[in-house]
Amino acid sequence: MKSDVVIIGGSAAGLMAALTLKKRAPEKTVTIIRNVINTPIPCGIPYIYGIMGQVNKNLIPDQGFIDQGIEILQREVEDIDRADKAVVFSDGDRISYDKLIISTGSKPFVPPLAGIDKTNVFTVKKDPVYLQKVYTALTPARNVVVIGGGFIGVEMAEQIALMGQKAGIEKKVTVLEMMPRCLMLACEEEFCLEIEEELKKVGVMVKTNCQAEELIGNGGIKGVKLANGEIITADAVVIGIGAQANIDLAIKCGLEADPRNGIKVDKYMQTDDADIYAAGDCASKFSCITGKPSGIRLASVAASEGMIAASNLCKGRSRVTMGALGAFSTKVGNRSVAAAGMTSRSATEEGIEFVVGEVTTPNRHPGHLPGSVSDMKIKLLFRRDNDQVIGGHVSGGDAASDMVNIIATAIQANLTAEQLAVMQYATHPLMTASPLSYHVMLAAENAAVKLR
Amino acid sequence: MKSDVVIIGGSAAGLMAALTLKKRAPEKTVTIIRNVINTPIPCGIPYIYGIMGQVNKNLIPDQGFIDQGIEILQREVEDIDRADKAVVFSDGDRISYDKLIISTGSKPFVPPLAGIDKTNVFTVKKDPVYLQKVYTALTPARNVVVIGGGFIGVEMAEQIALMGQKAGIEKKVTVLEMMPRCLMLACEEEFCLEIEEELKKVGVMVKTNCQAEELIGNGGIKGVKLANGEIITADAVVIGIGAQANIDLAIKCGLEADPRNGIKVDKYMQTDDADIYAAGDCASKFSCITGKPSGIRLASVAASEGMIAASNLCKGRSRVTMGALGAFSTKVGNRSVAAAGMTSRSATEEGIEFVVGEVTTPNRHPGHLPGSVSDMKIKLLFRRDNDQVIGGHVSGGDAASDMVNIIATAIQANLTAEQLAVMQYATHPLMTASPLSYHVMLAAENAAVKLR
Ligand SMILES: Cc1cc2nc3c(=O)[nH]c(=O)nc-3n(C[C@H](O)[C@H](O)[C@H](O)COP(=O)(O)OP(=O)(O)OC[C@H]3O[C@@H](n4cnc5c(N)ncnc54)[C@H](O)[C@@H]3O)c2cc1C
Ligand SMILES: Cc1cc2nc3c(=O)[nH]c(=O)nc-3n(C[C@H](O)[C@H](O)[C@H](O)COP(=O)(O)OP(=O)(O)OC[C@H]3O[C@@H](n4cnc5c(N)ncnc54)[C@H](O)[C@@H]3O)c2cc1C
Repeated sequence: MKSDVVIIGGSAAGLMAALTLKKRAPEKTVTIIRNVINTPIPCGIPYIYGIMGQVNKNLIPDQGFIDQGIEILQREVEDIDRADKAVVFSDGDRISYDKLIISTGSKPFVPPLAGIDKTNVFTVKKDPVYLQKVYTALTPARNVVVIGGGFIGVEMAEQIALMGQKAGIEKKVTVLEMMPRCLMLACEEEFCLEIEEELKKVGVMVKTNCQAEELIGNGGIKGVKLANGEIITADAVVIGIGAQANIDLAIKCGLEADPRNGIKVDKYMQTDDADIYAAGDCASKFSCITGKPSGIRLASVAASEGMIAASNLCKGRSRVTMGALGAFSTKVGNRSVAAAGMTSRSATEEGIEFVVGEVTTPNRHPGHLPGSVSDMKIKLLFRRDNDQVIGGHVSGGDAASDMVNIIATAIQANLTAEQLAVMQYATHPLMTASPLSYHVMLAAENAAVKLR
Repeated sequence: MKSDVVIIGGSAAGLMAALTLKKRAPEKTVTIIRNVINTPIPCGIPYIYGIMGQVNKNLIPDQGFIDQGIEILQREVEDIDRADKAVVFSDGDRISYDKLIISTGSKPFVPPLAGIDKTNVFTVKKDPVYLQKVYTALTPARNVVVIGGGFIGVEMAEQIALMGQKAGIEKKVTVLEMMPRCLMLACEEEFCLEIEEELKKVGVMVKTNCQAEELIGNGGIKGVKLANGEIITADAVVIGIGAQANIDLAIKCGLEADPRNGIKVDKYMQTDDADIYAAGDCASKFSCITGKPSGIRLASVAASEGMIAASNLCKGRSRVTMGALGAFSTKVGNRSVAAAGMTSRSATEEGIEFVVGEVTTPNRHPGHLPGSVSDMKIKLLFRRDNDQVIGGHVSGGDAASDMVNIIATAIQANLTAEQLAVMQYATHPLMTASPLSYHVMLAAENAAVKLR
C-alpha cells in the first residue's frame, strides 16, 4: 500500500495536518494512522468525568475527515523504514510514503513513586478505552487524590468532585501540588490563588508545597504518603504532572530526538530527514518570546505546527513557525482564568526586566447588566527595554479566553504598550467593559505611563 | 477662576481625557464642563427602555472622577475667548485655561421631514432629562416607529419591544431603514440578515428599502407616511439616523471645522490653535485603513482620542492616533454581532480588491457543552495586494465582542492572513472552538489558501 502522505497520530497535530493537506494539495492521498480506537478531544478529557458524564461524548468524529477523502487506520506503527520510505507494522505490513508527518504526541509523565503500580492509580491517557477504565474506577470512589496541580490536575479534580455531586456519592477530592501554587507555571500568582479559591468552593481540598512520596496499600491503593509523613486516604489516585514527548519511533529510526525536547525540527517543522516532518507535542519547540527551547505542549501549538508542516510538505519550505507561545485558559466553578506568554516569575528567571499594567473592572457597562462579572481582571507584562508585551493574564467570565487571544496576538505581533493603549476596541454595554476601561486598553495605558 | 486644563464635554472623550491627565500630569488642575445634569452612558441608552427600566440606572457616576480631583461643572459654555484663553458663559462668567480640550461630541441628526415637530417625535439625545421624557412618552405607546436601522435604531427598537413585554403593554414596533438592510454600513450583509431575523423573533417589524416621507397627525403624531404612500400607525416615533459633529463653539471662536467632518485636528488631536485640542465625536477623523476622512463616531474612538489629546497636551506632541477603525458590537435577542473595519461593500467602493476567509463552527468543543452557540460565524477580509486584514465580522455568543477585538488589533497592527493563520490562540472546551477550528485562525487560513 502507498499513500502520498502518511501521518502517524490522529490527534490535534495530525488532524490539522491532514485538513491542511486537503485544503492546499487536495490531489494528494493522505493516511492517518493511530493506535487508539477513537481520538478523544484531549482538552475535553476532564469534562468526561463531570459535565459530560460519558467517554463517548468526548470523541472527535472521524466522519468529517473521511468525507474529505482522508484515510484513517487504527494500527500501531512499529517502525519507520527511512531508506525505503515506509511505515512498518508488527505483522510486517507496510505503507509507503512520499512524505511522512510524525505527530505521535505525548505520554503522561509517570513519576518514579513507590507503589505507582497499585490498582486504581491512573494517569490521564488520550485513549478512550483507558479513560473508560478510569471512569469505572472513579465512579464508586469516595476519596480521590489528584497528584499535580497544573491545568490537567485542577480540571480533573474539579470534575471528579462534580461527578460525585451528580451521582449523589460525595467524593473527597484532594489536589497535591509541589509548587507554592496550583497552575504556577502558566499563571500569575494572584490568578492561581483565584483558582485555588474556586476549587475550595466546589469542595476540592488543595495542598500546595506538598510532595507525594509513596502510594500505599496492599495491591489496591489505600492512601498517598507525603514527604512530611502525612497520609491522605485514597481509593483512587489520578496523576497529572505533565507530558513527555513520544519519541519512540523517531529514536528507533535514527532521527535526532531527546525525551526532554522531543524530535528535533527546524522552523519549517522538518526533521533531519527531508521527507519527514514532525508536529505537535512530540516535536521540539522554541519560545516565541525568548527563542530558547520550550517545553510548552498545548493543542493550540500542535494545531499550528500541524498546519505549518503540512503546508511546507506540499509547497516547499514556505511557512515558518513563530515559536511556541503558551496561550491557555481554564475554568473552575464560575471563574475563568486565561494566560498568554510569560509570568512575572518566568520573566524574572529569564532576566527580563518588565513593567506591569493592571485593571479590575466589570465586564459590562453599567456593571449591573446581566452577565456581569464585577471584578474581571487583567494583568499585562511589558519588556522595559523595548516596551513589547510579553505576557497577559485575564480572569473573569467566559470571554476571558477570547480576550487573552487579543494579548496572544499582540505578543506574537510584537506590539508595544503604546500601540495597545491607543488602539480602538469594540465595546458594548451587554458584552464588555466601558470604552473608558476596556481591559486590554486600560492595562496597556497603565503600563505605558510607567514606561515613559 | 482658572484651571490648567478645561475640558468642554463630560462624556467618553472628555472623561477619558480627564482620567489620562490625572494619570500623566497629576499636578495639573482639570475642570470638566458639561451642559447636562449627568452624563448618561451613551451606549447604554437603548437599555434604559428595556433591560434597565430606568434612566437613573444608566448614568456615569461623577464620584470616581471627583475623587481623583477632577472638577465637574454643569454649565453651558457660550463661547471660547482664544485671545484671552478662557471659556465664557452666558452670564459673563469665565474660566481661564492653559490648555483646552473641546469634546462637545455629537447631536442626533434631524432629518428635514415634514411634521418633525409633532409631539411624541424624539431623537436619541445624550441628556437624562430628555431621555426621561422619551421614557414617559414610550411607556403607554402601542405603536412605535423607529426611523433608522443603524445600531441605535436596532437597539432602541428591540428594547422598546422589551419595555412593552415587561409592562404587559404590547407594543407594535417597526424599524424603517432606507438601505436594503439594517446595520449595512457596519456589517456584512449576511450578518445584517441575522440581526433582522432576531428582531423579528422579538416581535419587531423590519421594513428596509423604505423611506419615511412625512410624519402625520394633528399636533400629536398619528403615523409615518412612506415614500410609497403607505402609512404606518404610530403614537410615538424615535429617530436614530446618525449623529452630527457638534462644532458650534469651534465655529464661533474661529477654529476650522465643518458639519460633515467636525473640528479639524491633526494626528496629535491638536486644532489650529496650539492650545486647543479636540477629541471624540466632534473632532475630524481619518480612516485607519484608507487614510481618508472618516465619519465613524464611536465611544471607542472617542476614548482613544481623549487619551491621545490629554497625553500630548501635557507632554508635547508624542502620541499619535492610528485613525478611526470602526470596531463595534451589538446584541439582539440571543445573537451577538460584531464588526471591525471594512465590509465587502465599503472595500469595493474604495476599489480595494480583497479575499474572504470564513468559518462557521461551534464556540465550544465538543459542541454540546453548555453555552454552545452551534453556528458561531466569522468572516475576514484581506487585501489582495498585501494580504493584510482590513475587516472582520463575527456573530454568535457574547464573546463575539472580544473576538472581534482580536481582529481590531490585527487590523491596527497591519497583520496578514499568514500571520493570523499560523499564530497560536488559547482554546478551551468550555469557552472556545476547538484548536482545529478556532474562528480567527481557520478563517485566516481559509483566506491564506486563496492568497497564495
Ligand atoms: C487532560 C488534558 C487537558 C488538556 N487541555 C488542554 C487545553 O485546554 N488547551 C490546550 O491547548 N491543550 C490542552 N491539552 C494539551 C493537548 O491535549 C495536547 O497538546 C495535544 O493533544 C497534542 O496533540 P498532538 O496531536 O501533538 O498529540 P496527542 O494528542 O498526544 O496525540 C498523539 C497521537 O498519536 C498516536 N500515536 C502515538 N504513537 C503511535 C504509534 N506508534 N502508532 C500509531 N499511533 C500512534 C496516539 O494514539 C495519538 O492519537 C490538554 C491535555 C490533556 C491530557
Ligand atoms: C444610543 C447610542 C448607542 C451607542 N452605542 C455605542 C456602542 O455600543 N459602542 C460605541 O463605541 N459607541 C456607541 N455610541 C456612540 C457613542 O455614544 C459616541 O461615539 C460617544 O458618546 C462620543 O463621545 P464624546 O465624548 O465624543 O461625545 P458625546 O457623548 O456626544 O458628549 C458630548 C458632551 O459635550 C457636552 N456639551 C456639548 N456642548 C456643550 C457646551 N457648549 N457646553 C457644555 N457642554 C457641552 C454634552 O452635554 C456632552 O456631555 C452610541 C451612541 C448612541 C446615541
